[in-house]
Amino acid sequence: MARKRLYRSKKKLGQIPGTVVYTGERSKEKLSLEAFDFDKDSFTEKQLATIEDCFDYKNTNTVSWVNLNGLNHVEAIENLGKHYDIHHLVLEDIVNIAQRPKVDDHQTYLFVVLKMLYYNNNNQLVSEQVSFILGKNYVFTFQEAEGDVFDPIRDRIRNAKGRIRNMQADYLLYTLIDAIVDHYFSIIEILGDKIEDLETDVFTNKTSDDLSIQIQDLKREVLRVRRAVFPLRDIINKIEKNDTALINSKTIHYFKDVYDHLTQVSENIELHREVIGGLMGMYLTSISNKMNEVMKVLTIMASIFIPLTFIAGVYGMNFAYIPELQYKYAYFVFWGVMVVLFLILLYYFKRKKWL
Amino acid sequence: MARKRLYRSKKKLGQIPGTVVYTGERSKEKLSLEAFDFDKDSFTEKQLATIEDCFDYKNTNTVSWVNLNGLNHVEAIENLGKHYDIHHLVLEDIVNIAQRPKVDDHQTYLFVVLKMLYYNNNNQLVSEQVSFILGKNYVFTFQEAEGDVFDPIRDRIRNAKGRIRNMQADYLLYTLIDAIVDHYFSIIEILGDKIEDLETDVFTNKTSDDLSIQIQDLKREVLRVRRAVFPLRDIINKIEKNDTALINSKTIHYFKDVYDHLTQVSENIELHREVIGGLMGMYLTSISNKMNEVMKVLTIMASIFIPLTFIAGVYGMNFAYIPELQYKYAYFVFWGVMVVLFLILLYYFKRKKWL
Amino acid sequence: MARKRLYRSKKKLGQIPGTVVYTGERSKEKLSLEAFDFDKDSFTEKQLATIEDCFDYKNTNTVSWVNLNGLNHVEAIENLGKHYDIHHLVLEDIVNIAQRPKVDDHQTYLFVVLKMLYYNNNNQLVSEQVSFILGKNYVFTFQEAEGDVFDPIRDRIRNAKGRIRNMQADYLLYTLIDAIVDHYFSIIEILGDKIEDLETDVFTNKTSDDLSIQIQDLKREVLRVRRAVFPLRDIINKIEKNDTALINSKTIHYFKDVYDHLTQVSENIELHREVIGGLMGMYLTSISNKMNEVMKVLTIMASIFIPLTFIAGVYGMNFAYIPELQYKYAYFVFWGVMVVLFLILLYYFKRKKWL
Amino acid sequence: MARKRLYRSKKKLGQIPGTVVYTGERSKEKLSLEAFDFDKDSFTEKQLATIEDCFDYKNTNTVSWVNLNGLNHVEAIENLGKHYDIHHLVLEDIVNIAQRPKVDDHQTYLFVVLKMLYYNNNNQLVSEQVSFILGKNYVFTFQEAEGDVFDPIRDRIRNAKGRIRNMQADYLLYTLIDAIVDHYFSIIEILGDKIEDLETDVFTNKTSDDLSIQIQDLKREVLRVRRAVFPLRDIINKIEKNDTALINSKTIHYFKDVYDHLTQVSENIELHREVIGGLMGMYLTSISNKMNEVMKVLTIMASIFIPLTFIAGVYGMNFAYIPELQYKYAYFVFWGVMVVLFLILLYYFKRKKWL
Amino acid sequence: MARKRLYRSKKKLGQIPGTVVYTGERSKEKLSLEAFDFDKDSFTEKQLATIEDCFDYKNTNTVSWVNLNGLNHVEAIENLGKHYDIHHLVLEDIVNIAQRPKVDDHQTYLFVVLKMLYYNNNNQLVSEQVSFILGKNYVFTFQEAEGDVFDPIRDRIRNAKGRIRNMQADYLLYTLIDAIVDHYFSIIEILGDKIEDLETDVFTNKTSDDLSIQIQDLKREVLRVRRAVFPLRDIINKIEKNDTALINSKTIHYFKDVYDHLTQVSENIELHREVIGGLMGMYLTSISNKMNEVMKVLTIMASIFIPLTFIAGVYGMNFAYIPELQYKYAYFVFWGVMVVLFLILLYYFKRKKWL
Repeated sequence: MARKRLYRSKKKLGQIPGTVVYTGERSKEKLSLEAFDFDKDSFTEKQLATIEDCFDYKNTNTVSWVNLNGLNHVEAIENLGKHYDIHHLVLEDIVNIAQRPKVDDHQTYLFVVLKMLYYNNNNQLVSEQVSFILGKNYVFTFQEAEGDVFDPIRDRIRNAKGRIRNMQADYLLYTLIDAIVDHYFSIIEILGDKIEDLETDVFTNKTSDDLSIQIQDLKREVLRVRRAVFPLRDIINKIEKNDTALINSKTIHYFKDVYDHLTQVSENIELHREVIGGLMGMYLTSISNKMNEVMKVLTIMASIFIPLTFIAGVYGMNFAYIPELQYKYAYFVFWGVMVVLFLILLYYFKRKKWL
Repeated sequence: MARKRLYRSKKKLGQIPGTVVYTGERSKEKLSLEAFDFDKDSFTEKQLATIEDCFDYKNTNTVSWVNLNGLNHVEAIENLGKHYDIHHLVLEDIVNIAQRPKVDDHQTYLFVVLKMLYYNNNNQLVSEQVSFILGKNYVFTFQEAEGDVFDPIRDRIRNAKGRIRNMQADYLLYTLIDAIVDHYFSIIEILGDKIEDLETDVFTNKTSDDLSIQIQDLKREVLRVRRAVFPLRDIINKIEKNDTALINSKTIHYFKDVYDHLTQVSENIELHREVIGGLMGMYLTSISNKMNEVMKVLTIMASIFIPLTFIAGVYGMNFAYIPELQYKYAYFVFWGVMVVLFLILLYYFKRKKWL
Repeated sequence: MARKRLYRSKKKLGQIPGTVVYTGERSKEKLSLEAFDFDKDSFTEKQLATIEDCFDYKNTNTVSWVNLNGLNHVEAIENLGKHYDIHHLVLEDIVNIAQRPKVDDHQTYLFVVLKMLYYNNNNQLVSEQVSFILGKNYVFTFQEAEGDVFDPIRDRIRNAKGRIRNMQADYLLYTLIDAIVDHYFSIIEILGDKIEDLETDVFTNKTSDDLSIQIQDLKREVLRVRRAVFPLRDIINKIEKNDTALINSKTIHYFKDVYDHLTQVSENIELHREVIGGLMGMYLTSISNKMNEVMKVLTIMASIFIPLTFIAGVYGMNFAYIPELQYKYAYFVFWGVMVVLFLILLYYFKRKKWL
Repeated sequence: MARKRLYRSKKKLGQIPGTVVYTGERSKEKLSLEAFDFDKDSFTEKQLATIEDCFDYKNTNTVSWVNLNGLNHVEAIENLGKHYDIHHLVLEDIVNIAQRPKVDDHQTYLFVVLKMLYYNNNNQLVSEQVSFILGKNYVFTFQEAEGDVFDPIRDRIRNAKGRIRNMQADYLLYTLIDAIVDHYFSIIEILGDKIEDLETDVFTNKTSDDLSIQIQDLKREVLRVRRAVFPLRDIINKIEKNDTALINSKTIHYFKDVYDHLTQVSENIELHREVIGGLMGMYLTSISNKMNEVMKVLTIMASIFIPLTFIAGVYGMNFAYIPELQYKYAYFVFWGVMVVLFLILLYYFKRKKWL
Repeated sequence: MARKRLYRSKKKLGQIPGTVVYTGERSKEKLSLEAFDFDKDSFTEKQLATIEDCFDYKNTNTVSWVNLNGLNHVEAIENLGKHYDIHHLVLEDIVNIAQRPKVDDHQTYLFVVLKMLYYNNNNQLVSEQVSFILGKNYVFTFQEAEGDVFDPIRDRIRNAKGRIRNMQADYLLYTLIDAIVDHYFSIIEILGDKIEDLETDVFTNKTSDDLSIQIQDLKREVLRVRRAVFPLRDIINKIEKNDTALINSKTIHYFKDVYDHLTQVSENIELHREVIGGLMGMYLTSISNKMNEVMKVLTIMASIFIPLTFIAGVYGMNFAYIPELQYKYAYFVFWGVMVVLFLILLYYFKRKKWL
């Protein structure tokens, strides 16, 4: 089985800084642009054909959300960047899918990168990068491919559920980040189940598979989740503390809530790490216990039959004169002695609690 | 045995933020509202029928304590929230029983969440969430179900014992929190007993049960207590440092006392963790020691009888000419040599301290 | 053997805060009040009969030291507290012998709690709580029972040795704390000796006692010392940094000296912990080494005699036609082959360095 | 195999501070001076013959980059230092190749030391020191020998690719540092591959080589990379925070980008350390598992044949009267019993899952 | 072997604070006073007979360095202290050789204590305390006995090498401290060699010595070096940050250089600790590997010969009717079967890679 790499290479060596180069593997992905534009009363949703179609959202009074799927379409992203005055280093970060989660405040817009986590159909943990640009009245999201955890939010915009239609772009950013963070809880839950399964395996293990490889792999998985989640707390904290005009003071409360959730997720991850850390020790003791059992069987068998065999050997000797041999009931006495010896040794091992 | 989950899921994925949804399992619980209203001279205690009955406590000069049991009654809690101007995120936190302990200062009221710990009848550690809202002249407490550690305080209010009737709502909050923290000491004590029992088991262990599972489980239990207790210290610290008008400077001294107690509890938890951490090592050495003992028995038995058996085998050979066989006392000489060999080996193992 | 508890319960559950209740076990202790009153030129020492006798020290120009033994006499302590305006939470802390070391600045007096450590006659580590109240011109010390480390100081006061008679109450507090801290060094030394003894046992261990229990117990002892010593550094630091009028700037130098000593003690404790931490690993390798030795003996014995026995068995067979049996010197050839085989195997094990 | 030293000695004991002495081993290296001088429009590249040839770059309006290979030519470096007013401690640091990465701000110039990492032809990790001096309009780089990771930058200057020709010396410094940091990613990748190979070896290990030496060596290699990388983050942070006139505010963004990359590299190193830390545990369990397997084979063989041999021994005895011996089919009955016993034991081990 | 104590006792219990009592073991040491007095142009060096001879250096314009060997001469030191207004706690610290490295700023002079490390003739690590008093125009150094690392500095003063004669007393202090720190590098190097030797021993270990004691001892040695070195960094940092008039701003650069060296030494110590920490694990796996090898030999020998012996036993039975016995070539068939069985088992173990 090909083990999952822990990292991905950042970029080509010697590449010019600020060059917008897609570093992922989905280079055949179709560009998809999905736009929501809404205020308290009205709402439009459409698929945009070209990147130029979303240039109009720059100066409107409504809140706009444009979701772009397909980071391989770098020219489209560069065009968007030019029109909305996005720094070229930001554009480079958007298409470089090995970014560490971070937030950058560029005065006129806020740039946030984070990791969406989910288990794919092969039950492998996938970490997909999602970038956000929050402007005065718009949010752009950038994803590698279709499929995300934002459907409930789309639904809320369509049906004006909750506060979303009454709030500004900063609240939209909050709900999008919150959706991703919420999903972390299900990841944590799956990891918890895997740990419990592995614990059960360790205790009942009768197969000869080496469980330590599974323990190590699970530890790695937890480390990968940790890498995605931990920087996020600093990010939310920065947003919360930030005095940028892009985040209203009313929305701060909501970001604090996300922060609390992240603290909870982080605590659970640390807990998982501690438990996995203990698993290796448990496994080692369970192996040692099993060896003990094997050794006891051997010792009991050998200790009982080796003396008996010796005595049998004695009476197989060909000395000219062995008095016992002539005694008529000697054979039966022999068996009697054997049985008594056997019982004594049995009792000895019983008392030692080896049986 | 179903092992206790380490976490509980926060909320439904995609749920609208600020939605007041009960996340626990006791959805059939009856709503119970218990109210204490007192000042220096007077005192009333009653069971309220509906949530509206406690709306009057908002603007009185007495101190009021309303204890609500039954977090499944979300509308009642929402009504209360509306009347007392509680933020909807706070209400969500009250009924979401997977909160991390925290304090939030909302100017007109202080919101505190913490965990009440106790062992239930099945000797399982239960962590129940208790939320507090401290207003100018009232304290609300929210619990999932009946049964708590507040009876001594009820008693003190009824009988005007101690300072409680002479002080304000902030002192009432202090006594309630102090009651919960006091109870942590008994949890610590029980954990200490469990650890000592397990230590004794590890040293005297003659059963084949794998103690490592018990060590791991106990470690988990300590981790769960730690999770409930550790955030609390920050909370009390925040309350202490806080310059809110809701806490009088005279009460700060009492919160400092709670802080000291929490420091003590935390230290004990860390001590427990260290001792449990050492237990696994002790268990491993005890297994190895036992294996050593098993191996010694085997080695002694085999080392003594294998050479003897060989010699017996020699004289069982059918060579035409073996001079010893004809010698009359050969058989007795044989036994003599056997016994001497036996004694030499015995002495050898004795000197090696294997016997 | 009853193992030493790591903690003691704080107080009765549900007890009213600020209630002065003695939590120790020496409830039969006699009240003893010993008073020193001195200035540069004069000096009196007496045993006081009742607590009221020390009320006069409140407003004198001399420095007074009253040492109270017998924390079970709570009324006496409460009376003292009333007369000297001591906060009731402080009084509760004095008689609650499970306090964590701490300092509290109450403007008109300074309250310090710390732990006096010594080994009792059964060679068990005892941690006894000593509380100090430093007023403008007096120091009160509170101890559970007679017997302390203050005798050299009593002597210095009596004989005007050193600076003590020329200095104020704050210097007296310093000398008392210094005496306790000095004693920690001897505790550290005893722990060091115990560790070395245990190390020697681990290397030369031929007994079947499980040393891991002793290692774990010693670790616990170090942890207990650590608990008493570590908070003290913060305390001295607070006193040093404190701008209270109770401590003269000239005395600060002396507290800095205590701080340096505590840093040294703390470092030694950490060193002890590291060494003990390594002991378990050493013990495990020593067990494994011993098992290796046992296994080698078994393997050598079995590997040498099993083939020999097989050959002897071959010539004990009753086949009608075994040519060797008829050969006259066959038996001697047999022995020759045996000896050669034996020597070859011996050489083999020698080369493998098993012998 | 000579293992790689973890450190190199700093300097001769007793050496006068500020003495410029080369501490490396390449004392035969030829001095090579390569100069780039450019602005937006023009560009010259030449090999300088003597150090005096680069004195002219001090007061020009163009950006100059002089790269010096051959730290053994200390007089040349001292001459340069005199002309450009470089502190003699800085010159000592340049030629002392055991420097820890650091940055020093000397007002008129900035001194940066860092480590270039690469694997040489023998697949050994080499850490080569590179020093930078950033003046108002020049950058000096000092290397021990030819061969570096700066070729893409030389190329960019020649062909005016990217922003490099439009920017100042501080941007040049950034690109040079960025080139080195970029190279760290490939080091991380190689380390990751080595770890995975070692993991595979641990699981499938059938050779008798001790893998723990390889694990320890790999751990050391990661530690060496860590030592080169970790101080660098502080350095970039200092440059970023620095209010020196040498770094333009526009360039700060680029240094932030380097900082992000370093954070990523550092995280990967820590991840590698955790995984390697777990490897030793995996190796230990895999050894124990293998021993278990060995023990099982022994136990099964011995447990089956020892009783059988005993019975065969019984009927080899020479008692005058053994009734079974005369029974005609006794021999066949004997074989029958043997087979049945054999099958019972086989079944027993099967049920124990040892087979 | 007497193991080296990890600590030395601070002082006599109950000793009056500020009492100048020598705590070392070299109470017979002769007092030696060596004085250097120099400025840019002139220089005198002499051995002083009595402590009073150095009283003249108090108010000169030259820089004076007095080195005192023999801390047992407490009166001399007290006299010096009186004349130069040294605080009595400082004098106590000078002769108390168990000081932790520290710096104290007493306005008119700076007091520095640190540890000189070297290996003595028995290859044991010796940590000798050196105290420094830096006044306006003098430096006093206090050592327990003759022999130090200051000879190169004496030489530099004599021959006016380097800057030493042109600089003030603070630079002299720097060079003295630098000499001690430089010597740490050679300690680190020796420790590195010891670690490598031990690693080689662990891998090739065929002796029965328990290497874990050597590992533990080396760990202790590293801890002792660490204790001497780590506090020093804080000290240099304090001196650097200090705004005392005793240190010129020009000398700060030099102290920064010492700080860098200490950082390097500290990093190497931490590296050494990590490697030693891993050694125990390597040792444990190497023991387990060896046991595996032993077990394999036993298992192979036993598994091959036990079945063969059984078959030989069968044909040694005395049943009246065993058909094979009469068959003429039975014996040769028997040997054939034996050889085939032997080869099958050999092949089996070969395939299992046990051979």
